[in-house]
Amino acid sequence: MHIAIVGATGAVGKTLLQLLEQRNNNIDTLSLFASPRSKGKSLTFKGSSLTVDTLTNLSFEGIDLVFFAAGKKVSLEHIPYALKAGVRVIDLSSAYRQDPKVPLVIPEINGAILKGNPSLIASPNCSTTIMLMVLAPLHFHFSIKRILATTYQAASGAGEAAMQELLEESKAFLANTPFARKILPHPYAFNLFTHNAAMTSSLYNEEEIKMVEETHKILKDPSIKLSATCVRVPVLRAHSESLNVEFNTPVTRKAIYEVLASSPGISLLEDWEANRFAMPLDASNKEEIFYGRIREDTTQAHTFWFWVVGDQLLKGAALNAVQIAEMLYWNKLLR
Amino acid sequence: MHIAIVGATGAVGKTLLQLLEQRNNNIDTLSLFASPRSKGKSLTFKGSSLTVDTLTNLSFEGIDLVFFAAGKKVSLEHIPYALKAGVRVIDLSSAYRQDPKVPLVIPEINGAILKGNPSLIASPNCSTTIMLMVLAPLHFHFSIKRILATTYQAASGAGEAAMQELLEESKAFLANTPFARKILPHPYAFNLFTHNAAMTSSLYNEEEIKMVEETHKILKDPSIKLSATCVRVPVLRAHSESLNVEFNTPVTRKAIYEVLASSPGISLLEDWEANRFAMPLDASNKEEIFYGRIREDTTQAHTFWFWVVGDQLLKGAALNAVQIAEMLYWNKLLR
Repeated sequence: MHIAIVGATGAVGKTLLQLLEQRNNNIDTLSLFASPRSKGKSLTFKGSSLTVDTLTNLSFEGIDLVFFAAGKKVSLEHIPYALKAGVRVIDLSSAYRQDPKVPLVIPEINGAILKGNPSLIASPNCSTTIMLMVLAPLHFHFSIKRILATTYQAASGAGEAAMQELLEESKAFLANTPFARKILPHPYAFNLFTHNAAMTSSLYNEEEIKMVEETHKILKDPSIKLSATCVRVPVLRAHSESLNVEFNTPVTRKAIYEVLASSPGISLLEDWEANRFAMPLDASNKEEIFYGRIREDTTQAHTFWFWVVGDQLLKGAALNAVQIAEMLYWNKLLR
Repeated sequence: MHIAIVGATGAVGKTLLQLLEQRNNNIDTLSLFASPRSKGKSLTFKGSSLTVDTLTNLSFEGIDLVFFAAGKKVSLEHIPYALKAGVRVIDLSSAYRQDPKVPLVIPEINGAILKGNPSLIASPNCSTTIMLMVLAPLHFHFSIKRILATTYQAASGAGEAAMQELLEESKAFLANTPFARKILPHPYAFNLFTHNAAMTSSLYNEEEIKMVEETHKILKDPSIKLSATCVRVPVLRAHSESLNVEFNTPVTRKAIYEVLASSPGISLLEDWEANRFAMPLDASNKEEIFYGRIREDTTQAHTFWFWVVGDQLLKGAALNAVQIAEMLYWNKLLR
């Protein structure tokens, strides 16, 4: 098979490359594309050096599957050409997530949709995926009425340059030297700020709106009430989420733990006696989503708090996309 | 007047000293006490060097007012002697906050209680004070039904050594050198963890329980439903809080902003167009509590999100205690 990555030099692109190297033995050719400023750079794949090229309308010839990990604008501009060339597309950007013709897929939750052999598949926003890996199985068992999500999001969601900037700004802060910020809009070292996604007229930012809309689409249930507050914290690559969840039916804490124990891709991490729950450093570079600290919210019936932490670059982005490709392959939908 | 600070060498104690120096012109003598390991240290007050002493049962002779900022254990052990010596006590620890005979005071909210001339006054937990400075005026106007609080708490709440440890651990992280943690239980640099206050059998930690119990006591209304998730983030000295608040009565966003605009000790900080809201670095070393980003939670009637940020050492601790003393003085209840 001939696979391609668009946005190969970014944080998500590099993670895609690593995952394909670790997991996939069916790749004959890998093509890497990025913006003009990365042209000519080389990246290593299975011991070979691959040169990064820029994308043209003719780049898709002969490719079987392409991952788009270069942001919404690049996806909107180039995906139509890829589809016209008959190439299967997995888009990690938000460009097509709300398109009713495009399935939005987390394989563990709604992977069955892939049997329809869609030519374009969207992979969800990181905050949504990390939340739903824990809440989707509970919704299917107990029916969720309302979710209040408050997030603690890492630098990686803003890209590799933001991760680097957090490190550099922290060094400058500790050395008490001036620092000229280029990527993020606000001081980040030893600070935090409400998510820098674009603000909308609803007064919610786009990150918060994505969590609502993508949840409705993935769970095929717009009746779920969801409201979010998204915040960027000085952490490198794992998002944490504090979730307050009201169920439509009576449910016990024990039943919740039981359902989650048999759900794929998630891992219980808690030690109540030691007051030790999942942390971003636990989840960094890990494929599974960690959950725990499930407490009854005694102020309301059928309501519980959850604490969920997941690597933003892996299950929050690249891993989910690779799993979509793998599921297509297992279903013999990739040649 | 003769004033004393117990716990003078800690983060809160030093902030008390600074505030007394800046604000109070009626202090003739200031006595500083701390644990044996600080004995003999000296601190500067209005240009004079004051030597730190250890506390004995006889230390309170001749003192008019003492601030206790050395933690619950020291308060429980020594406050009875201070009271027996006829000394006015303002306790910043949790030791007496739930004692029905001891008023728990935020001057802007329930300062009137001080007219009863209490001999012992408790100052609330930082997370509670920062939240209530914004929510109390709204409760008095519109009646709050339920609060869901999710916090982003700074190192300072764990003391000066924790602040220092965050800086040192961050340096080690950036230099990729090993670091031996002494104060906090978990990695803190570029990480976060659920609050390290002691866990209780309710599954809520003590910080979360304080927010509930102290809110009920200060607002004299145990019918307010409150549930909290408290988290420690790698920030030095200001706490942020994401608050979801349901009111008992219909209320508009405009009415909320109007009430808060005329409430004391708080300051609106928001720029919707620039997607710019209060951050810990804005609030650090500032006396007022910053609020903003008030959004309707469209999933439930009469419900709004609030974003609140305040300096943990100032209004969260030392400033509130000093304001209690000042209010006693203005009411001619201190000689």
